[in-house]
Amino acid sequence: MTGFSFNAKIRGGLKVAIIGATGLVGRTLIKELERSSLPLSELFLYASEKSDGAILEFKGKACVVKKLSNELFSSPLDLAFLCAGKAVAREYAARLVKSGCLTIDNSSLFRNVKTVPLVIPEVNGEEAFLSNGLIANPNCSTIQLCTALKPLSDAFGLKRVIVSTYQAVSGAGQKGISDLKNGEIGLPPKKFPRPVYSDCIPHIDDFTHLLYTKEEEKIINETRKLLSLKDLKITATAVRVPVYNCHAESVNVELKNPCRRTDFIAALNRSSAIRIVDDASLILYPTARDANGKREVFVGRIRRDYSSSSAFNMWLVADNLLRGAASNAVGIAELFFKEQR
Amino acid sequence: MTGFSFNAKIRGGLKVAIIGATGLVGRTLIKELERSSLPLSELFLYASEKSDGAILEFKGKACVVKKLSNELFSSPLDLAFLCAGKAVAREYAARLVKSGCLTIDNSSLFRNVKTVPLVIPEVNGEEAFLSNGLIANPNCSTIQLCTALKPLSDAFGLKRVIVSTYQAVSGAGQKGISDLKNGEIGLPPKKFPRPVYSDCIPHIDDFTHLLYTKEEEKIINETRKLLSLKDLKITATAVRVPVYNCHAESVNVELKNPCRRTDFIAALNRSSAIRIVDDASLILYPTARDANGKREVFVGRIRRDYSSSSAFNMWLVADNLLRGAASNAVGIAELFFKEQR
Repeated sequence: MTGFSFNAKIRGGLKVAIIGATGLVGRTLIKELERSSLPLSELFLYASEKSDGAILEFKGKACVVKKLSNELFSSPLDLAFLCAGKAVAREYAARLVKSGCLTIDNSSLFRNVKTVPLVIPEVNGEEAFLSNGLIANPNCSTIQLCTALKPLSDAFGLKRVIVSTYQAVSGAGQKGISDLKNGEIGLPPKKFPRPVYSDCIPHIDDFTHLLYTKEEEKIINETRKLLSLKDLKITATAVRVPVYNCHAESVNVELKNPCRRTDFIAALNRSSAIRIVDDASLILYPTARDANGKREVFVGRIRRDYSSSSAFNMWLVADNLLRGAASNAVGIAELFFKEQR
Repeated sequence: MTGFSFNAKIRGGLKVAIIGATGLVGRTLIKELERSSLPLSELFLYASEKSDGAILEFKGKACVVKKLSNELFSSPLDLAFLCAGKAVAREYAARLVKSGCLTIDNSSLFRNVKTVPLVIPEVNGEEAFLSNGLIANPNCSTIQLCTALKPLSDAFGLKRVIVSTYQAVSGAGQKGISDLKNGEIGLPPKKFPRPVYSDCIPHIDDFTHLLYTKEEEKIINETRKLLSLKDLKITATAVRVPVYNCHAESVNVELKNPCRRTDFIAALNRSSAIRIVDDASLILYPTARDANGKREVFVGRIRRDYSSSSAFNMWLVADNLLRGAASNAVGIAELFFKEQR
């Protein structure tokens, strides 16, 4: 890999495209771009045919959504966010990169490709600069997990990690939200394999030959890549819960070097992306209500696991659309363009 | 302990009382008694003052609920179920036992008392006969956990157990159900510390000085007692989820002796209380919808945890009111009275 440089490009401001602009992540991304420090001059919104002509707002101005086509390449882009799944990423990513456009893909297609950096700015931001123009945005549940694991890995080393997730329906897009809404009034599900209303479904994405789901394998494999710990001992159970937005995770982490709870908390606090909400005497711990609309990963219920000499339990909550997708993607772009304003 | 015998008592049938008859567990218990093999001749229902005079049905007949008072002792009882919390258990349990009545307490008051057996019939039924007349019914989330752990402990030995729960609001009684129902129409919670509607709350029962909740400590301590493994390495995170009925648990179990998945499943199948629902190729795994109204503990998502040479993940679901309370309590009584019909 030779690395990718944008130095000469952004005189006059960035030309940016969002592909998959009308989805939940796309819409959240538009809002994140509004508040970002990126020197954006033009925004192009693309989506599937059914959203052709839709109007979305960006910084108070109407922005027409176009049907995705080769028109994408009609004028040179500086930055593109792919938020439209694996098939669209497969068709467009390489061409975008070839056109000289920094391409950030939110699908799982390239996450395990060795030459494509998988990046959380606060975890391994430096790896973004090894990119040839394509960077993969990690899975939502992985982003919040690794944000918390990274400072612990740095401070104490990780021996073994066991995760059980409590994942919101927004992770499955607007259809996931509709399924829960419809379930509340007794209608059957269309997106999920069974009704998520008043139930927890231990099944996210397809099953693999190892009897894990792809969501669980994403958590395992992406964590190893993000933390540069290819042999990390980690297992996961991914569960959809009847919550509209924000994923929670019950995490058991066994450290290589034992530490006190105060040291554990101090390490977490070293990350700018973490907010600790943890005081049993005040009945304080984070839930979806706290994390909704926020960019931090919230951590609480931090306590020694007495079944091991060096293990802790903790409870993570984050906005899966924001911290788990849009905010991370914009953060990657800011690594390249922020300082050049 | 000398053990307790009922041989001479039940000529003419059992006189049975339910204290706390109008609560969710009490009502479920009435239905369980209707279908049980216990030779019941009379049923007395007691509750708090506000339910005085309420009418509940038992085997098609109206049964008047009385306010709990010393009238409980006006005629000798053979069997009493205490389902009215710790305060009532503290006041009445000893007197019931002294009157010669087999007393099964559903509160946590006696569960950790060394001389009081804590019993799941399919796990340690034989210990019921060491009772001096008082038997503790375990915590709902513990019952389903230990039902699954026992055959694994017998077959392979347990090295370490890590549990994250997904607990239904019915575990907090009718007020818990009301909180979720009210949350659906935007009303604030009365029972839970925060709204459970569209949120997961990692806080069940009070916090302890170890920063665990009492619910988590119940899971840890009761499991050790039920399995007679006082040093078992086990930790738990207990979470309330917006589900009306049936608790789920994500369980990571490290075995002393490694085994194949087929052996693991065969061991679980040895328990009459377990029903395995696990076939990824058919998208089969248990959820609350399957377990609701059923007496078995449902087990699925059984798979090797590759972070250890001898660990598995599994997903347990059970009806917390039925398997986790009423059915277990009636099962304890049946150990004593069933064969004497």
